[in-house]
Amino acid sequence: MAAVKACNILITGANRGLGLEFVKQLLKDSSQKQHIFATCRDPDGPKSEVLRELTKKHPNVITIIRLDADDPCSIKESAKKVGSLLGKCGLNLLVNNAAKMANGNIQTSSVEDMKNTFNTNVIGPLLIIKEYLPYLQAAAKASGIPGMSSNKAAVINISSLGGSMTRMPPMYIQFPELPYCISKAGFNMLTVLAAEEFKADEILCMALHPGWVKTEMGGEKAPLESKESVEGMLRVIGSLTEKQHGGFLDYTGETIPW
Amino acid sequence: MAAVKACNILITGANRGLGLEFVKQLLKDSSQKQHIFATCRDPDGPKSEVLRELTKKHPNVITIIRLDADDPCSIKESAKKVGSLLGKCGLNLLVNNAAKMANGNIQTSSVEDMKNTFNTNVIGPLLIIKEYLPYLQAAAKASGIPGMSSNKAAVINISSLGGSMTRMPPMYIQFPELPYCISKAGFNMLTVLAAEEFKADEILCMALHPGWVKTEMGGEKAPLESKESVEGMLRVIGSLTEKQHGGFLDYTGETIPW
Repeated sequence: MAAVKACNILITGANRGLGLEFVKQLLKDSSQKQHIFATCRDPDGPKSEVLRELTKKHPNVITIIRLDADDPCSIKESAKKVGSLLGKCGLNLLVNNAAKMANGNIQTSSVEDMKNTFNTNVIGPLLIIKEYLPYLQAAAKASGIPGMSSNKAAVINISSLGGSMTRMPPMYIQFPELPYCISKAGFNMLTVLAAEEFKADEILCMALHPGWVKTEMGGEKAPLESKESVEGMLRVIGSLTEKQHGGFLDYTGETIPW
Repeated sequence: MAAVKACNILITGANRGLGLEFVKQLLKDSSQKQHIFATCRDPDGPKSEVLRELTKKHPNVITIIRLDADDPCSIKESAKKVGSLLGKCGLNLLVNNAAKMANGNIQTSSVEDMKNTFNTNVIGPLLIIKEYLPYLQAAAKASGIPGMSSNKAAVINISSLGGSMTRMPPMYIQFPELPYCISKAGFNMLTVLAAEEFKADEILCMALHPGWVKTEMGGEKAPLESKESVEGMLRVIGSLTEKQHGGFLDYTGETIPW
């Protein structure tokens, strides 16, 4: 199994669900050199308690950073803070995991839900990528290795099958999540365009579907545990090369059609 | 050539560019039974003068309706007005043509441009489809013909190659239109999900790429005249069956990958 050996890793939405599971699993395999920036909207709130406990146990590995994907100022401030802690080797791996769900069909989707999902799931990641790009570029330069990999410099966008024009429609009547699906299709476009921009810098960028997972977002009926999903995603992330640059894979490594 | 024989047609953004050309070409072939609802943001403004002149010459065929895709109230009011004029045979053809362009890459795309393009190009059409759905359903019922066609009941979403995850990336460095492309990817998702919802009512729904056209949006360098683009699109629209339901074609009838 290809392990993630990136030195400096940032994960958004890291206080619960898949984000928290990413932190837990990265901790297990972490080398002494590894550092995880675990970002969340409200580091001091009740929903971040588990992350705070974990950080107390591993103060040299985890740093909690406030980052609200809906708030451009907080994104800028987080980047400043992380930048000051990173040093010369830059940021190797940025996992855009924070996201918002909203249900609805054509009749029931509200303008507010359309705007909110788009803000959190598309505009947020765009600004995060923009603000952290200098650190990703620094990591790519510092590595000295040609080609692309998640250990060198990579942006992993946690997308969804719901963003696939090919795969979502047959599931739509069972899962009427129009605002969410539209935002994830936009997120996928952001991924392929960012990938195009990053080619010269050799920063890998791709979209990853975590599967349907038992989280607050996925609900109780989901067939997959967070543990299995994140194990799969870390395996995929660890094995990425330029071949998957600009691609869309699921947690098992299967390519998803757009 | 398959002609568009739909009785009641509504075209958004009909005061200029492709929208105005749609009105002009439909007028040429119009039967006595046909009626065109030409919507625009500012029917009394200087940018609607040509449409007003055209309407003066063909007062029995064209009705100008105020509709601002950015303003949910104006969408609702337009639907009320059109509904009162339509009668029992309903609305056969809705062409979601109004759209906004915005340039930018990851560094230069503003939050405002991201929000504006999403509002006009995605939320607007969603609300338009929602408000006009009863009239499309009435048309589908009134036709009495099985299957799907643009003469019976159809929603044609004027999308763009810029919304294709497959085809846009190689053109992105030459055309850095990130906010526009993201909105069009979202618009394509709206199209496929609407198509899913409309199956039972036999309302056809698909996305159409007009080509790169010499309009205010397309610019002077575009290789295609509005005339040729709209001739092609009307040929495609006139020949649609349930086979193209939920699909993405260009003005020549070629399928575009998502």
